[in-house]
Amino acid sequence: MQTSNRVNQLKKSAIHEMTRLSKQYDDVAFLSWAKPSSGTPAHINEAAIKAIQKGLTSGYSQAEGLPELRELIAEKLKHDNKIKAKASEIIVTVGAIEAMAASVTAIIDPGDEVILLTPTYSTHITQVKLASGIPVLVPLNENIGFEPDFEAIVKSITKKTKAIILCTPNNPTGTIFSEDELKTFAKIAQKNDLYIIVDEAYEYFVYDKHKHFSIASIPGMEDRVISVYTFTKSYAMTGWRVGYLHANENLIAQIKKVHIPFAICVPVVSQYAAIAALKGSQNCITNFRNEYQNARNLMCERLDCLDEHFQYVKPAGSYLMFPKVLDNRADNSFEFSKLLLKEAKVSTTPGIAFGPNGENHVRLSFCVPDDMINKAFDRIERFYK
Amino acid sequence: MQTSNRVNQLKKSAIHEMTRLSKQYDDVAFLSWAKPSSGTPAHINEAAIKAIQKGLTSGYSQAEGLPELRELIAEKLKHDNKIKAKASEIIVTVGAIEAMAASVTAIIDPGDEVILLTPTYSTHITQVKLASGIPVLVPLNENIGFEPDFEAIVKSITKKTKAIILCTPNNPTGTIFSEDELKTFAKIAQKNDLYIIVDEAYEYFVYDKHKHFSIASIPGMEDRVISVYTFTKSYAMTGWRVGYLHANENLIAQIKKVHIPFAICVPVVSQYAAIAALKGSQNCITNFRNEYQNARNLMCERLDCLDEHFQYVKPAGSYLMFPKVLDNRADNSFEFSKLLLKEAKVSTTPGIAFGPNGENHVRLSFCVPDDMINKAFDRIERFYK
Repeated sequence: MQTSNRVNQLKKSAIHEMTRLSKQYDDVAFLSWAKPSSGTPAHINEAAIKAIQKGLTSGYSQAEGLPELRELIAEKLKHDNKIKAKASEIIVTVGAIEAMAASVTAIIDPGDEVILLTPTYSTHITQVKLASGIPVLVPLNENIGFEPDFEAIVKSITKKTKAIILCTPNNPTGTIFSEDELKTFAKIAQKNDLYIIVDEAYEYFVYDKHKHFSIASIPGMEDRVISVYTFTKSYAMTGWRVGYLHANENLIAQIKKVHIPFAICVPVVSQYAAIAALKGSQNCITNFRNEYQNARNLMCERLDCLDEHFQYVKPAGSYLMFPKVLDNRADNSFEFSKLLLKEAKVSTTPGIAFGPNGENHVRLSFCVPDDMINKAFDRIERFYK
Repeated sequence: MQTSNRVNQLKKSAIHEMTRLSKQYDDVAFLSWAKPSSGTPAHINEAAIKAIQKGLTSGYSQAEGLPELRELIAEKLKHDNKIKAKASEIIVTVGAIEAMAASVTAIIDPGDEVILLTPTYSTHITQVKLASGIPVLVPLNENIGFEPDFEAIVKSITKKTKAIILCTPNNPTGTIFSEDELKTFAKIAQKNDLYIIVDEAYEYFVYDKHKHFSIASIPGMEDRVISVYTFTKSYAMTGWRVGYLHANENLIAQIKKVHIPFAICVPVVSQYAAIAALKGSQNCITNFRNEYQNARNLMCERLDCLDEHFQYVKPAGSYLMFPKVLDNRADNSFEFSKLLLKEAKVSTTPGIAFGPNGENHVRLSFCVPDDMINKAFDRIERFYK
C-alpha cells in the first residue's frame, strides 16, 4: 500500500523543515519565514471581535465570500490595480495559497504543462505537481536582475502548455515584472492561447521608483488571467488566512467547483477582519512599506560588508531577497542553511526550495525588526571570521 | 482555451444552487443546509476574542496546527473514539472538507478508483474527480435501512481500487455503520490492501440506542485508516472552518505535503476557538444532540402524516434525513426541489446531489428550530392538498 506518486515525488517543504530544525536551538535569529513580525493592526482585530460579539461568525458564508467583502474588493481592484472588476468575478479564498491551488486544479488536467519562472515560490511548483501537471521551469536571468528570458519562455511552449504562473513581486528574489515585461507576457499568452495565473501577494511592497502593475489590467486579457491577492501580506494577517482571486465569470464558475470541495468558504471571522482592512485607513500599508524598505536597505548594507561571501540583486519589491552564496562551505544550499543554523544560530531558507537554479542561494526575509537583522548579520560576520 | 476536463465534467453544486435559488423568494422555510441554526456557544466565542486581544492570532501557526490543540485532540480521540492517537498523528484542517480533499489527493493518482457508498455527501465524489480519480459508486440498500451491500462492494474492487470512502453517520441518509459493519469493512480493506478514509463529522449526533464507532479503533487498521472529524458540526461552528484528521505518522507526512499547498495552516483564531471547544464543558454537545433528536422526532411525525407522498428511513444519526418522494409531480429530484421552493416556499436539497440512486429523494436538515420544521411541513401539506 502506497500513497500517490504525486505526493511521493515531493520533498518535504524546505521552508517548514527549516522551521522545525530552528526550534531545536535557543535564541535563533530568524530570517527564514515570510511572516511579518508586526501584529495585525488594532482596528482589524477590533472589527473581528465585534463580528464575533454580534453573532455573525457562527455559520458558513456564501462559498465565494461575503457580498460586502467582494464589493469592497472589486472597488480596490478598480482603484489600485486598474482592473475592471465586479463582485461576481471574485472568490474569497484561504489566503493566496488556496486561490493558487484551486486555479491550477481548475485549469489543468494530468499531463498538462505549466511554465514557471525560477527561482520562484516552491509551492507554485508543488501545486502543479499535485494536480498531476508538469511544471516546466524556465530560469530568470540573475545576471540582469532576475529578468525573464522571453526567448527561453517561448521556446518552452508545447502543445501541452496550458498556463504560465507568474509571481510579482517575486518570492524569493524580490524582483518585479515591469509593465512592459507584463505586456510581453500578455502577447505570448494571446498568441499561444495560454492562461496566466499571477500571484500578486506582495503588490503593495514595492520600493524606490518601482511600480506594481497588474497584467489583468491589459485590455484583451480578461478571459485568460486569474489574479491572486491576499490580505495576509498587505495587512500583516498571515494567521487569518484570507485572500482572493479575480477572473472572468466563466472562469469563476469553474474555479468555484474546486474552491467548495477544498474549503467550502473562508472562515467568516477572517472575512469580517478583511472587510475592516479594506474599509479602514490604509496608513498601515504605508507604514509597513516604509518599515520594510528601511529593513531592506539595512540588510543590503550588511550584505555589502560581506561581498566576498554573498552577491545579491537589490529587491524592488516584496520583503524577501535571494543572495547568492559565493563560497563553498557546504555542499548545497540546504546544507549551507543547516550549517548557518548550527554554527551561527541564524535561520535562512535554502535556495533549492525555489527551483534548481535556486541552488547556491539563500532566501532572507526582511519583514523583521532591525535588531533581528543586525543580530543575524553580526553572527554571520562572526561565522565567516 | 478550455478549463480542465476534471472541472468541466462537474455540475454546479446542487446544494449551493438551491441556496442561490432560495434567495429569490422571501420567507423561505429552509431545510436545505447542513448548518445548525444555533450559534457557536458563548465560551468558544469568548476564547476566540481573548486570543485576538492577546495578539495570538496575527501570524501563521505550525502547518499541522497549534501543539496545544493537537494534544487536546489526541486526548479526545483516545477518550471518545478509542483511537490510540498521538499529537504527531494529527493535522488540523479547514473543516472536514479540506481534510478529505487533502487525504484523497495524497492517496490516489489519476485513474485510481475509489469506492463510495451512495447516497453520500456529493463533495466526496467531487473530491475524487478533482484528483482525476474514478469514483466507483456502490448503492446502499434502502430497503434494509441504507445498509451496505458487502457483496456488491467486494465485487466492485479492481486492481485500480485504492480506497473506500465512508461517511458515518451518513450524510444525507442519517444512517450509521455499526461496529460489526465497520469490522467487515476493515477485513475487506486488509484483504484487498485498501485505504479507508472515513468522514465522522456527525460523530456526536447519534440517537436512541445507537452508538458511534470509529473504524480506526480496530487493531491492525492503524496503517490504513484516515479518520476525519470537525469542530464545525459538533460545536455549531461551521463558519469557523476548523476540523482535523488522524492517521499514522507516515501518512501524516504525506498528507501534510498536500495540506500546506492547499491552506498553509488553519486560521489561528479558529484554532483558539477549537481549543476552547475541547477544554470547555461538553454540555453544549449534549444539548445540541437533544435538540436534534427532538427535531428528528418532530420531522418524522410530520412525514408520517404525508405517507402517501414520502417514505423514509428514520435517521439513527446526523441531523439529516433522506425521504423518498413517492409521487411524480416533477421529472426528477432537482425539478421537485425547485417546484417545492416555487409553490410551497420550502427549500430542500435534491437527492440527485448525493449520487444516481439519490434520485427521487430530497434531503431534509433537522438542525433547525421546531417552528421552522412545522412551517415547512404546514406548507408541504398545503402543497399536496
